[in-house]
Amino acid sequence: MNLSPWLTGIEALATLAFALSGLLEAARKRLDVVGVCVVSGLAAFGGGTLRDVLLDRRPFFWVEHSDWLWALLGLCLAAMALLKVRHLAVTNRAMQWPDALGLGLFTAGGTQLALDQGLPALVAVLMGVITAVCGGVLRDIVCNEIPKAFHDHRPYAVCAFAGGWVLVGAQALGWGEGPSLLAAAGTATLLRVLAMLTGVRLPGWREPPPPTR
Amino acid sequence: MNLSPWLTGIEALATLAFALSGLLEAARKRLDVVGVCVVSGLAAFGGGTLRDVLLDRRPFFWVEHSDWLWALLGLCLAAMALLKVRHLAVTNRAMQWPDALGLGLFTAGGTQLALDQGLPALVAVLMGVITAVCGGVLRDIVCNEIPKAFHDHRPYAVCAFAGGWVLVGAQALGWGEGPSLLAAAGTATLLRVLAMLTGVRLPGWREPPPPTR
Amino acid sequence: MNLSPWLTGIEALATLAFALSGLLEAARKRLDVVGVCVVSGLAAFGGGTLRDVLLDRRPFFWVEHSDWLWALLGLCLAAMALLKVRHLAVTNRAMQWPDALGLGLFTAGGTQLALDQGLPALVAVLMGVITAVCGGVLRDIVCNEIPKAFHDHRPYAVCAFAGGWVLVGAQALGWGEGPSLLAAAGTATLLRVLAMLTGVRLPGWREPPPPTR
Repeated sequence: MNLSPWLTGIEALATLAFALSGLLEAARKRLDVVGVCVVSGLAAFGGGTLRDVLLDRRPFFWVEHSDWLWALLGLCLAAMALLKVRHLAVTNRAMQWPDALGLGLFTAGGTQLALDQGLPALVAVLMGVITAVCGGVLRDIVCNEIPKAFHDHRPYAVCAFAGGWVLVGAQALGWGEGPSLLAAAGTATLLRVLAMLTGVRLPGWREPPPPTR
Repeated sequence: MNLSPWLTGIEALATLAFALSGLLEAARKRLDVVGVCVVSGLAAFGGGTLRDVLLDRRPFFWVEHSDWLWALLGLCLAAMALLKVRHLAVTNRAMQWPDALGLGLFTAGGTQLALDQGLPALVAVLMGVITAVCGGVLRDIVCNEIPKAFHDHRPYAVCAFAGGWVLVGAQALGWGEGPSLLAAAGTATLLRVLAMLTGVRLPGWREPPPPTR
Repeated sequence: MNLSPWLTGIEALATLAFALSGLLEAARKRLDVVGVCVVSGLAAFGGGTLRDVLLDRRPFFWVEHSDWLWALLGLCLAAMALLKVRHLAVTNRAMQWPDALGLGLFTAGGTQLALDQGLPALVAVLMGVITAVCGGVLRDIVCNEIPKAFHDHRPYAVCAFAGGWVLVGAQALGWGEGPSLLAAAGTATLLRVLAMLTGVRLPGWREPPPPTR
């Protein structure tokens, strides 16, 4: 995430939003304190870590900035000490907004990193999508759910995919790194917000599947 | 997958068969369009990618040949637009044949790659098995199933295991790369076809487990 | 795992204990012979392998020592041939002891490896925890369970976490590698044994979550 310094604050907000989504899922599943920290950490750092493993980049973000791990640990412990599950339900709705912001920023950052390695456009866009989406996917796999991103018919990964292509397009047009990152993050976030507000659904199969198994 | 060029066509067929197996599973699970593409992609490329992460090989097959990603994307979208689930059920039975071919070819290719790195024979054979089997395993984990390869008592990984040893044995006997790859792929595929036709079952535990949990 | 030679015997015992925990889980889930070997292997070697992927270390432990893979294979086949599930139930209780030993040793070894790479203390401790805990986590994910380590409210990862900090602390105080490894492994194992004997529970959320889904 070599984004310019002034993006760091918003990125922190995004990581926080993803960590909170893990916290909520862990609360729903009645996990213990270890599970809460792990699921929260996976949701926050899992996407970027998976991208870095695929791109063979070291050190990971959370290795270079281990104070973020401390912050996460503190957040989880504080949440478990202070909050009732009822409070989290309120947070859930409010949280969609920073989550949409996080989606955009992680998409832009991940795609840029892959482009800097000279990867083909489609692969770079996929790396952006992986960065933005796979934290939530790992969260759901550990919680023994089919990942919501593949399943709930809400545009989520699709918004990241579109944002990634905006970055590729903007740089093909010769835009600088700053503006193209902003355009990409803005596009993904805006599409996600629109999807939330309008409730559009992704297409599924044309007929219900048979009741196999 | 540095197989000789004339194997590429059959390999494409194998990747296609694995992609289709993901498509079917996604249809059964009522995933949305994102889930269909991801599960299909995992089934097609997941085994080789996991092997490459374990062997620390870069770039991945789908990074070098990103047109295969485009083909996969097109396939998934076309399938969702054109096919009803009923059509896929027909494909399911027909698909076991290219799947068996894919099993053999991925086994041979993966084992050869590991042998080229000078790994011990058992490790090389395991890498072949991982290449051939783990795509399906990742597909099932994402779909929140116990992987069929570990569970359905049909010989599948076992066929790949046997094929891998044929490769090791053939090269110990001084066979060239071409003939030994063919022998390995042929053995794994043939065993799988025999298993399909005869319906033999892998041994399980000698008594039913207690109804724990 | 470059532990001093005389630790190797106990380490073998630990790996064996983890392999047995996989065997038991596979028996409970009625997996076939392939599933038994895979789940057992994941439980035994999965934590160390995941740590090595994250630290970008090659070759893996089981690549350098492929005779351990042969031993695992033999163990699984022998267990399926000779044991009834009833016998395994007995083993289950007895197995907690070597498992606690394994927890301590893998924690110490994993933390030491990460410290040797110059990683920050918290990251090194996490690598120790990953080494000790993630084998069991992968075992549970493949078996389609929420990982017990995140869920059963028994101190397990927490013991490893404490042990890792003992290692960091001891080396900050200038202790040699041998004594600090011993102190770390001893702390984690002792805490785990105490947790088993006293039945203490990790804190959960202060109220039961709503019956969502």
